[in-house]
Amino acid sequence: MAKIKKQPRPKAQTPKGFQDYFGADVTARNEMLSTIAGVYHRYGFDALETSAVETVEALGKFLPDVDRPNEGVFAWEEDNDWLALRYDLTAPLARVAAQYRNDLPFPYRRYAMGPVWRNEKPGPGRFRQFYQCDADTVGASSVAADAEICAMLSDTLEAVGIDRGDYVIRVNNRKVLNGVMEVAGLAGDDKEAERGIVLRAIDKLDRLGTDGVRALLGEGRKDASGDFTKGAGLSEAQADVVMGFMFARDRVLEKWNNEGTVKLMPGFYQSRLFDGSNESFEAISARLSDLRVSGTEDEIERLISFATITELSDLVSHAVVDHGQRSEIGEEGVAELAEIADLLDAQGYGPDRIVIDPSVVRGLGYYTGPVYEAELTFEIKDDKGRPRNFGSVAGGGRYDDLVKRFTGQEVPATGVSIGVDRLLAALRAKGRMDQTAVGPVVVTVMDRDRMADYQTMVADLRNAGIRAEVYLGNPKNFGNQLKYADKRQSPVAIIAGSDEFDKGIVQIKDLILGAEIAKNATLEEWKDRPSQYEVPRDQMIAKVREILDGQD
Amino acid sequence: MAKIKKQPRPKAQTPKGFQDYFGADVTARNEMLSTIAGVYHRYGFDALETSAVETVEALGKFLPDVDRPNEGVFAWEEDNDWLALRYDLTAPLARVAAQYRNDLPFPYRRYAMGPVWRNEKPGPGRFRQFYQCDADTVGASSVAADAEICAMLSDTLEAVGIDRGDYVIRVNNRKVLNGVMEVAGLAGDDKEAERGIVLRAIDKLDRLGTDGVRALLGEGRKDASGDFTKGAGLSEAQADVVMGFMFARDRVLEKWNNEGTVKLMPGFYQSRLFDGSNESFEAISARLSDLRVSGTEDEIERLISFATITELSDLVSHAVVDHGQRSEIGEEGVAELAEIADLLDAQGYGPDRIVIDPSVVRGLGYYTGPVYEAELTFEIKDDKGRPRNFGSVAGGGRYDDLVKRFTGQEVPATGVSIGVDRLLAALRAKGRMDQTAVGPVVVTVMDRDRMADYQTMVADLRNAGIRAEVYLGNPKNFGNQLKYADKRQSPVAIIAGSDEFDKGIVQIKDLILGAEIAKNATLEEWKDRPSQYEVPRDQMIAKVREILDGQD
Repeated sequence: MAKIKKQPRPKAQTPKGFQDYFGADVTARNEMLSTIAGVYHRYGFDALETSAVETVEALGKFLPDVDRPNEGVFAWEEDNDWLALRYDLTAPLARVAAQYRNDLPFPYRRYAMGPVWRNEKPGPGRFRQFYQCDADTVGASSVAADAEICAMLSDTLEAVGIDRGDYVIRVNNRKVLNGVMEVAGLAGDDKEAERGIVLRAIDKLDRLGTDGVRALLGEGRKDASGDFTKGAGLSEAQADVVMGFMFARDRVLEKWNNEGTVKLMPGFYQSRLFDGSNESFEAISARLSDLRVSGTEDEIERLISFATITELSDLVSHAVVDHGQRSEIGEEGVAELAEIADLLDAQGYGPDRIVIDPSVVRGLGYYTGPVYEAELTFEIKDDKGRPRNFGSVAGGGRYDDLVKRFTGQEVPATGVSIGVDRLLAALRAKGRMDQTAVGPVVVTVMDRDRMADYQTMVADLRNAGIRAEVYLGNPKNFGNQLKYADKRQSPVAIIAGSDEFDKGIVQIKDLILGAEIAKNATLEEWKDRPSQYEVPRDQMIAKVREILDGQD
Repeated sequence: MAKIKKQPRPKAQTPKGFQDYFGADVTARNEMLSTIAGVYHRYGFDALETSAVETVEALGKFLPDVDRPNEGVFAWEEDNDWLALRYDLTAPLARVAAQYRNDLPFPYRRYAMGPVWRNEKPGPGRFRQFYQCDADTVGASSVAADAEICAMLSDTLEAVGIDRGDYVIRVNNRKVLNGVMEVAGLAGDDKEAERGIVLRAIDKLDRLGTDGVRALLGEGRKDASGDFTKGAGLSEAQADVVMGFMFARDRVLEKWNNEGTVKLMPGFYQSRLFDGSNESFEAISARLSDLRVSGTEDEIERLISFATITELSDLVSHAVVDHGQRSEIGEEGVAELAEIADLLDAQGYGPDRIVIDPSVVRGLGYYTGPVYEAELTFEIKDDKGRPRNFGSVAGGGRYDDLVKRFTGQEVPATGVSIGVDRLLAALRAKGRMDQTAVGPVVVTVMDRDRMADYQTMVADLRNAGIRAEVYLGNPKNFGNQLKYADKRQSPVAIIAGSDEFDKGIVQIKDLILGAEIAKNATLEEWKDRPSQYEVPRDQMIAKVREILDGQD
């Protein structure tokens, strides 16, 4: 390490872009991670904890956001080798799947939880260390693995306290998008840059809106600050195809709402939607009309999902611009989407939880098949008090090429990553988190020579399961002890001086009630309520418990 | 980041000195940390999670083991600043205590758990990332804080499954050692190097034995490999004083066993040992004789602890070599030790849990007062099958100067660090850890088109609280599915093909029993025991539960 300039005193400062977490923030996250681990475990996923440090070589250059080339890893050289902090939990998984390929059971279901590090320029709300919580299945090519992860994600969100109806998991398939690129004449290696711009433009729909995305598909877009982002340079007709893909679901909905009809692939209305009946087209049309009048929201949502898949199927089955081509990969993607919809439907994960939605593409370059995203649908207020949707808290998809880097063999994999800190923020916003940290009962010190007695009191309280501590600062100023109890959010203080010891009693102060009385001192009703009790020492625990129970 | 040479394929390899943890190893550690956090919380300690990264400036040069100068931190430069991975949890705490000094309640009790990193040369059993689990009290000068941490450590060890009697917490005080240095003529700034060598020599008693330590106090020591370590160069008389300090407890024991007497400071026999009575010296001697004949082990241990403190008191109260001096700091240390012994005694933490033992000094340079160490006392077998004591699993002490680096103000602090991985190893060695990971029930796939049905089966099992998964690999070779179930340590496999679906039944295979039968195929008694059951689909869960219950 190089010599550091001598300074009189080091600065006590969290490094820029990093954070310290205190008390309930730490325990709430740990509790949430533990709940999530419980769900993952029940699904047969095993824990994996890799080291924070990897070789740069093993990490590779899979950094998610190519829009920010400054973003990188924290790395250092050692004996001609470069080591770095992991930037996600997927790259280490790929390394592990390759390294232990002869020992692990395959398909290998694993979950991992822990901090990851990004060497970003620090900025507001942009952190250089944050938690990820991932579950992946390595070695399963069947989209049943993707469906399983979507179902597990749904169970997980409900387990941590997000109610059904307050979230939706949107599923799409990259192969469909690739198909759309083909029919729009954007196939081929020479169009890779354009495809990348299209992918990232779609991924920004939430932030930029329809017009913004459309601009990025064309020449480019100038943002509010005047910065210009170059677009993909698509023709109007090509951009129409891409927009048609993104809004396939909306178009189906619109048609349903306006005309009361939808188009369905034979497979859907025959075996899936209408329980395998071989009805005539007329009969089905009649049923659709019925549905429109008296269908439940779920039934209609289900219909819309299947109709959206049909819409996508139509879209990729023929070239729509010059140089475009019918897309086999697109048709494969549609079939996979249908299979996932089917599997989830059969297990009862209906559209109240999981829907097919082509507008979800996920920004990461490495996805190769199904992609999925969990969005919280309730509104919160932003910094300026305006309502806005909470947005995405988890996402993932299939990446079949990551392990291949190491072994040369293609190993299919799919997985999800939960944004732990965002999910915690959501639960806080919903008031689902116990925000009031439970402070300890504070035993004050009136007589320094009685420390053994005070420590015995806290030991008694703790043995009775009550969080308790003795004041360990300088006891001279009793006011400081009560200020301390206040800062600790203590519900109860115990007071005993030589008088009390002589009489074998303790004073017990209800600090919550005391604060209420102080606030309402002028009100008649508070006047006669005592907030301090004198009880024999052997009744201390019973009285403290009584007060604590009353405060709940 | 510098350019990395292009290689055809990256190596899939955990970086040297780092480790990957799988399955039960991860969950067992998390469960242990959660149990420890529960005890700490009940004692009024709050969680703190700082970032893994600190400025090198804030970390300072407090690396614990000065014997290994190669040891350092992982650091990198950024905008003329150096950042580094934390090497322990104490340095970040000092930074936090200084940074948030106006907001935190003081005394500040906090616990922290997480990985720390050491840039050591990798070697067998020497890891560059490992867990620490700390609890510290910042801002309390009273040794009541040290006593509290010793009591909490005792509760913690029992909470994670170390039985009383299988561990002992040894307490000492650095001030006593400093006092011993003074009476041995080793005071003064010019003797700092000698004092450092003495400290580290004592700390190695376990490893080097009495002769090894004695050699290091004198000219030096040649180890088995022929390497020479320079000693402190003490005279015989000086070394005698230091050895007398280390073995103060042993000397007391010896005298008690041979002569049946001990020497006690007035304070002890009057107020502490004999319940404040004002007995005559003769009466006390008579009691000591009684104790020797009929005292319990605890009573005698208590006596030995107090007599050891008396022995230390004698040791530091007068110069014993030329240039030596009576030591005030030593007397202060003895008084603190007596106070800690007293406080713990009053709370019932007797010598079956916590003892006074001058041979414990802790190697770290920054301790300034009480030091403590938890040792597991049961024997385990080493690599070569030889019995050896398990040794230390936790330690700590008072460090009053760490925060001062930042603020210039002295802030007293004391704390303990638990070696999580060693403690886990100890529990494993004692057979206290559930070593058998619970594998999931595996639903096999006989008919690929029935995936939705198989997934519904696992969903039903999971909803009934049973860990379950469907086989997601290529289902063609059924043997592979059973091999997979074996690798997953599955207790039960479910089998259903078109026959079973037609009949509305499933086959349920007891894999544990099946393995037993296979092993004992020739034995008469196993012959008629079925390991596979055919049950109606709606009785699947009940039957699986019955089998699982039978396996427990």
